[in-house]
Amino acid sequence: MDLREQLNIHGTTGEGLKHWLADIPLTELLNGWDSLTPQEELQIFMGLNLATKADLITELSYSQQETLITSLSAQNARQLLAELEPDDLTDFLQAVSPEVRKSVWNNMSEESRKESLFLLRFDEDDAAGLMTPRYLAVRAAITVSQALNFVRRNAKAVEIVYSLYVVDELQRLQGVVDLKTLLSADDSLTVRQIMDTHYISVREDTDQEEAARILETYDLVSLPVLDSHNRLLGLITFDDIIDVIREEHTEDTYKMVAMQGKAERYLDTSVWGQVKKRVPWLIILLLLGTITTSVLDHYEQSILGAAFLILFIPVITQTGGNSGSQSATLMIRGLATEEIHTRDVVKVMLKEIAVGLLMGAITGAVIIARTILLPPGVGIYPALVIGASLSFVVLFSTVIGALAPIVISRLGFDPTVMSTPLMSTVIDVCGLTIYFETARLFLNL
Amino acid sequence: MDLREQLNIHGTTGEGLKHWLADIPLTELLNGWDSLTPQEELQIFMGLNLATKADLITELSYSQQETLITSLSAQNARQLLAELEPDDLTDFLQAVSPEVRKSVWNNMSEESRKESLFLLRFDEDDAAGLMTPRYLAVRAAITVSQALNFVRRNAKAVEIVYSLYVVDELQRLQGVVDLKTLLSADDSLTVRQIMDTHYISVREDTDQEEAARILETYDLVSLPVLDSHNRLLGLITFDDIIDVIREEHTEDTYKMVAMQGKAERYLDTSVWGQVKKRVPWLIILLLLGTITTSVLDHYEQSILGAAFLILFIPVITQTGGNSGSQSATLMIRGLATEEIHTRDVVKVMLKEIAVGLLMGAITGAVIIARTILLPPGVGIYPALVIGASLSFVVLFSTVIGALAPIVISRLGFDPTVMSTPLMSTVIDVCGLTIYFETARLFLNL
Repeated sequence: MDLREQLNIHGTTGEGLKHWLADIPLTELLNGWDSLTPQEELQIFMGLNLATKADLITELSYSQQETLITSLSAQNARQLLAELEPDDLTDFLQAVSPEVRKSVWNNMSEESRKESLFLLRFDEDDAAGLMTPRYLAVRAAITVSQALNFVRRNAKAVEIVYSLYVVDELQRLQGVVDLKTLLSADDSLTVRQIMDTHYISVREDTDQEEAARILETYDLVSLPVLDSHNRLLGLITFDDIIDVIREEHTEDTYKMVAMQGKAERYLDTSVWGQVKKRVPWLIILLLLGTITTSVLDHYEQSILGAAFLILFIPVITQTGGNSGSQSATLMIRGLATEEIHTRDVVKVMLKEIAVGLLMGAITGAVIIARTILLPPGVGIYPALVIGASLSFVVLFSTVIGALAPIVISRLGFDPTVMSTPLMSTVIDVCGLTIYFETARLFLNL
Repeated sequence: MDLREQLNIHGTTGEGLKHWLADIPLTELLNGWDSLTPQEELQIFMGLNLATKADLITELSYSQQETLITSLSAQNARQLLAELEPDDLTDFLQAVSPEVRKSVWNNMSEESRKESLFLLRFDEDDAAGLMTPRYLAVRAAITVSQALNFVRRNAKAVEIVYSLYVVDELQRLQGVVDLKTLLSADDSLTVRQIMDTHYISVREDTDQEEAARILETYDLVSLPVLDSHNRLLGLITFDDIIDVIREEHTEDTYKMVAMQGKAERYLDTSVWGQVKKRVPWLIILLLLGTITTSVLDHYEQSILGAAFLILFIPVITQTGGNSGSQSATLMIRGLATEEIHTRDVVKVMLKEIAVGLLMGAITGAVIIARTILLPPGVGIYPALVIGASLSFVVLFSTVIGALAPIVISRLGFDPTVMSTPLMSTVIDVCGLTIYFETARLFLNL
């Protein structure tokens, strides 16, 4: 039963609605949200309790957030905005239209405005762009018992209570005490005695993906962000890092099929926005691909001498492209997860030559069998020549596919530029040359 | 300076080594680890403190873990194993060779063996395969002050102190109290009064990726795992979920270039292991791709009538494949992140038709200009025909690329089977047909 049907059963206001929504899982709301009208969205939203409202709104797209917030009364909007975390609120302020921003700003508390102004100083793509300015900080001289009392009085004000940060009078980070250590420690010890001075932190201008990798390596719930004087600016929490990892995943996937730009919701972008994202690489690859036109023109004589060669052009380019993309992707992913390093180049090459020889032999045998057994029949000797060419193309593509990302990475560039389509285009040109040269050799053209 | 040079400076045993390693970031060790000899690995490992040893070993590959553990003395191995989290230890036990497993088992404490036997009952790919059996559980009737004392006494034994789980006498989960709530609550309240009974949980057999999505949606640090009687079995912590998300990313990336199987470390797999992962789809796509041979054979007369058509075969297939892969990837990623639903099919189709028309027009214009301006010259009218064909192919590929994953998903299959190479192969066949039919029409062949 979808949300609309349930809304009809439980009524659009009153106790029935509240009762139904008190137990509703957030995932159910999110799955059905897109199919609701703005009026239905508002009816359901008003039936939720404040905490669920805040949870729901941060999971919606910015355009959906905007629709909702602008349809709330001033008082309801104020209550909701007070419930949002400062980092989510600041992201929202940056995303909405100027009019909505103004009205939201007017409904924010004085403290929230200060926090947002502080957060807006930092670049969205830096570590500081992810942080919340609310954390629990104490001095090193106090006792465990005093620190615990401090935590108990202030826990409600912060997003995540997991670590206690020890700062000096200039707000410089001296050490970190995780709550587990604090709770397990003797009341009479001082914070200085139990704090970890080898804490892990990032700078305000550390790249977000680098911050993600650090939080991941050390299994941290939160990561302190420091300025160049070691002053504590705020915290990045694990949930924001998971979002960074997901976005990175989407952007990597787009790069693999030669699309550029940020991860955006497909349904939120315009037709022209989609074309701008997709057509530039399509044109570049098209122009690069026309080199094959010259290659084919060059081998015109061979083609006229053995017309059956034409029939296998797409099979040769496609299979070469596939095997090249496979090894390129293994390298790109291995380099990204730091399982492969550029210094492993010799080890990788030897392995890929062996893999390429085997895969070349297998695919060559398959195409020979296929060509002999099924129409269009071209005879046994031509079939053997095509099989041999395909083997060379697969070997070449496999090795080049692995080598290119490592070399690009060693030169200091991002190996993901060697996307699947670029790989295929390069291999089309080289593969056709190998194909016709092999044919010329064996067929005496 | 790499680890080996530092090891030479600081000495392979003694205080110099310990002093250097006391401050070393884990990331530095991990980056340099692959280039060390087994002996150097052991020297550095022995210089680390116990906690860093445990952190390091869980980040290494299983084969590296095996090398290290087998070179430790029985006493050192025992100490280290006692430091590992039960879930990491169990994963390790499942990965190593039978001989190593036996020696590790002999060095485990009685309690660890019990925990491992318990965890080994569950499927690796299920939610329960990720969980730790150590958590803090209390009864609902006790007071906040009693609960807090309980936490203080037992915090050290568990991986993450973040939530307190309230269970009845049959170990059934009644509610969850996060530490923030417990710390902020009045000492005299009972746990029952402050516990959240609308807690989020997963079943033991929930898929890992589903568990990841739930933890992510609700921004949870840990997620309780229940059996079919609602009994609490253990907890999944956010750090294991981040690993699941990374693995999912790698596996999705592999599927995109038609490779099968699990994410494994490239350098750990054998040549034959690599071939088995890569060659099956290569063969399937090769056989599917040979349909193009029949298509080309079918249009033999047209080709003989206008030989310049041959020159553009790779450009047509490559550009069609690229535009189809782009829209397929947008859909597959949109469906995976639940930003696009199968019910959006009409909205998506209208948008992709508009995008396809625009991209077709642009790429058509580009190929016309390129063909007229640069060799091999084919004349203006043939250039216009090629431009028109390319436009149709791009329009067709863009729409089919978007439609296929949605239809596949609606039929209940995983849309990632519509990988980039499969898409390209299907489009090769259709694209060539469109190309030659267009040419026949305009050139009266």
